[in-house]
Order: sequence, then structure tokens, then C-alpha cells
Amino acid sequence: MMHQSREAPKPLRLRRPCRRAKIALNKREPHMKFCSACGQPVTQRIPEGDSRLRYVCESCQTIHYQNPNIVAGVLPTWGSQVLLCRRAIEPRRGFWTLPAGFMENGETLDQAARRETVEEACARVGPMSLYQLFDLPHIDQVHVFFRAELADLAFDVGVESLEVRLFEQHEIPWGELAFRTVTRTLECYYRDRIGQHYPIGHEYLPPMNVSTSTST
Amino acid sequence: MMHQSREAPKPLRLRRPCRRAKIALNKREPHMKFCSACGQPVTQRIPEGDSRLRYVCESCQTIHYQNPNIVAGVLPTWGSQVLLCRRAIEPRRGFWTLPAGFMENGETLDQAARRETVEEACARVGPMSLYQLFDLPHIDQVHVFFRAELADLAFDVGVESLEVRLFEQHEIPWGELAFRTVTRTLECYYRDRIGQHYPIGHEYLPPMNVSTSTST
Repeated sequence: MMHQSREAPKPLRLRRPCRRAKIALNKREPHMKFCSACGQPVTQRIPEGDSRLRYVCESCQTIHYQNPNIVAGVLPTWGSQVLLCRRAIEPRRGFWTLPAGFMENGETLDQAARRETVEEACARVGPMSLYQLFDLPHIDQVHVFFRAELADLAFDVGVESLEVRLFEQHEIPWGELAFRTVTRTLECYYRDRIGQHYPIGHEYLPPMNVSTSTST
Repeated sequence: MMHQSREAPKPLRLRRPCRRAKIALNKREPHMKFCSACGQPVTQRIPEGDSRLRYVCESCQTIHYQNPNIVAGVLPTWGSQVLLCRRAIEPRRGFWTLPAGFMENGETLDQAARRETVEEACARVGPMSLYQLFDLPHIDQVHVFFRAELADLAFDVGVESLEVRLFEQHEIPWGELAFRTVTRTLECYYRDRIGQHYPIGHEYLPPMNVSTSTST
């Protein structure tokens, strides 16, 4: 089993994580007080011809729409093993995740997922196959995971990780996974791997305290 | 062939389209001048630990991230026919489209696609199957189309449409389609319909003036 760790000695950056890393996978900018176009205070109302509450600037008439974000990630494999990263940042610091993060403007889904794999695991992967999509409307996110084989074993501990490792199926730390979409993607992978058939799945994940009607 | 039209007499709302409709499928809020948290002017710089230019407020230290938007839509069918809507709004007023629009906060992909189908065609559809995903990084969008059979023929001309019709394959107005993702979704549909097998596709669509390396 490959294993790269940054645990000893603890690097300085763990005590001062960058701002970008800090908010990764948190909700972005839910509240707006001022108009980003003219700087005047905004109000919340349903604009004419609309049916939803929006932030509206009564001074310059700009309507500020807020829309869901996309998180893109990869399930990187090396033969029978899967690569996971132990998070150096909140939320879920110390828990294990697949490389994933917010898609940026100007990127494709593939590019976003590859970039996150480099940032979190310094890892390059080969051709990517679209695999699992998740709706998380309670946090205004859609998560998209690809499957991909590592290009080589030259992975390392990325700036947002404490540790990066390859795991055999029996070694997966199911109780220490950072996010439900990571757990579900791994569950689907090990289910599909038996028949070597990996259909693209699309699931709705309700808030944690609501009983689930999820199906793959 | 079913046919619902609002052409004669022209309703008032066509001369005064609602603000929301007006910007549908355009880029949202690319430029920011003031901090939405504190109202002070923002600057553009690469924050510490980041690699991208962001709008940053030096007064309250808020970093304003901007991320891609999701457009969700449906290819509604009725037996051998496909439902299209002729757009009453810019961009591409007068051109034909599949029902589609920006996903809203608090929605799943399915819910967004169904809502747009109601808004544009007053149409209800049965179970939806994920079908085509498109990366459009030059406009910071991901488009997601589902396939679904209409629940009934009680469709009508929605507030954002001039006309709503069912089309047989030979009637599709290929030269008058509003968006490339609509064209590609229809092309994939008629290709896949031959074998009655509809694999989920994922394509990158480059800007119009760049030669394409797109594959399904």
C-alpha cells in the first residue's frame, strides 16, 4: 500500500490554512447586504415577473441572482486500490475524502476534477469517465464525480491534505469519510466493480436529519 | 401534430418581458465593483494561498468567488414527437428551444428541469432520465438535459414562449434552433432512438469560432 504523510513534523501551513482552503465545500456567500454594482443597500423582494425572493438594488435596479455551485471530483484508482486524502482543512479536518472541490469559472467539469486531484494529492490521472452526480439542494450544490486510473504513483500530500494514501477495499475508513457524496461514490464503485460495469448514477441526497428516499 | 400559438393577437407581455426572463441564458453578474458584505469598493487580486484572480474587499477581507452556473432542461417527447418552444425573449428571440433555464438555489436538477418545462410550455412530464451534459467554459455554464415523456397533451404557451409545438423528426427546424446544446441534444436523441438505447453523454462545446474536438 502506498502511503504519503505529512504528519511529522507538522508543517506551518496547518496552523495557517489559506482562506480559499478554509471555505472549501462550505456554502458560499449566502447573504448580501450591499449592491455589488453600485454599493447601495439591497432589499429582498420578488421582482416583477419572477416567483422567487431575490436581492434587489432599488437604487440601480440590479437583481442579484444566486445559483447552485458545482463540486467536481475524482475517484482515482491504481489497480485494485483507491486514492483518498485526509483533509488538512475545515470542514471535516482529519477525515478522508476523494479529491474534489468547487468548479471554477472558465473550466470544464473534467478540468475542475483534475485540478482538485493535483491540488489535494499532487496526482495526475488518465482518461476520466463520468460516474456519479449528486443533488444536494439543502446546500445549493451539485457534486459530480469521475472515475480515473492514476497516471503513475508520483502522488504526494497536497496543500489541503494531511495524508494521501492508496486503500484496498477492506482498508477503506468508512467511519472516517468526510462527506456523504464520497461515501456514496465509493459504495457505488465497489458495487459496480464486481460486474466491471460502471453506469452513470444520479442521486438526491436529502439533509442528514431527513429520512432518505435515495436510489442510484 | 399538436400546435399551440400565441402569435395572434400578440399579448402585452411580449412587449414588456419580465427582467428575469430577459437575462435568461445570459452570463450572470460577471463584474463586481462593490463588496456585497460591507459596501466598500472591491479590488481584483490573487488572494494568499490561491492561484486565481478574485474580487477581494480590502475593508472587510471578504473574498467574492464567482462560479459556473447550471442550466437544466428537458427533451419532452410524445410518442415519436418532440416538444419545442419558440422563444419570446432574448437572447435568440423567435428561435426554437427545448425547455431549459438556470437552476435555482434549493432545487435538484430534476426539479429545475421540470420547473422550466412548466414555465416555458405549461407542460408536465413523467419520469425523467438524465441524458446529456455539456461543458461551456467560455460562458461559465454546464447544461444538463433529461429525457422525459409528456404526462399528457395539456401543454400551452408559457410566459417565455411565442409558440409551443410537437415536431416529428423531419419537421425539426434545424436552422432555427436557439442554442447549440439544444441542437446537440436533439442530434443525440435521433441517433440513439434508432437503437432505443440512450447512454448519458458528456461533451465539451468550445466557443463558436474555435474548431471543435467535441465527441459524445
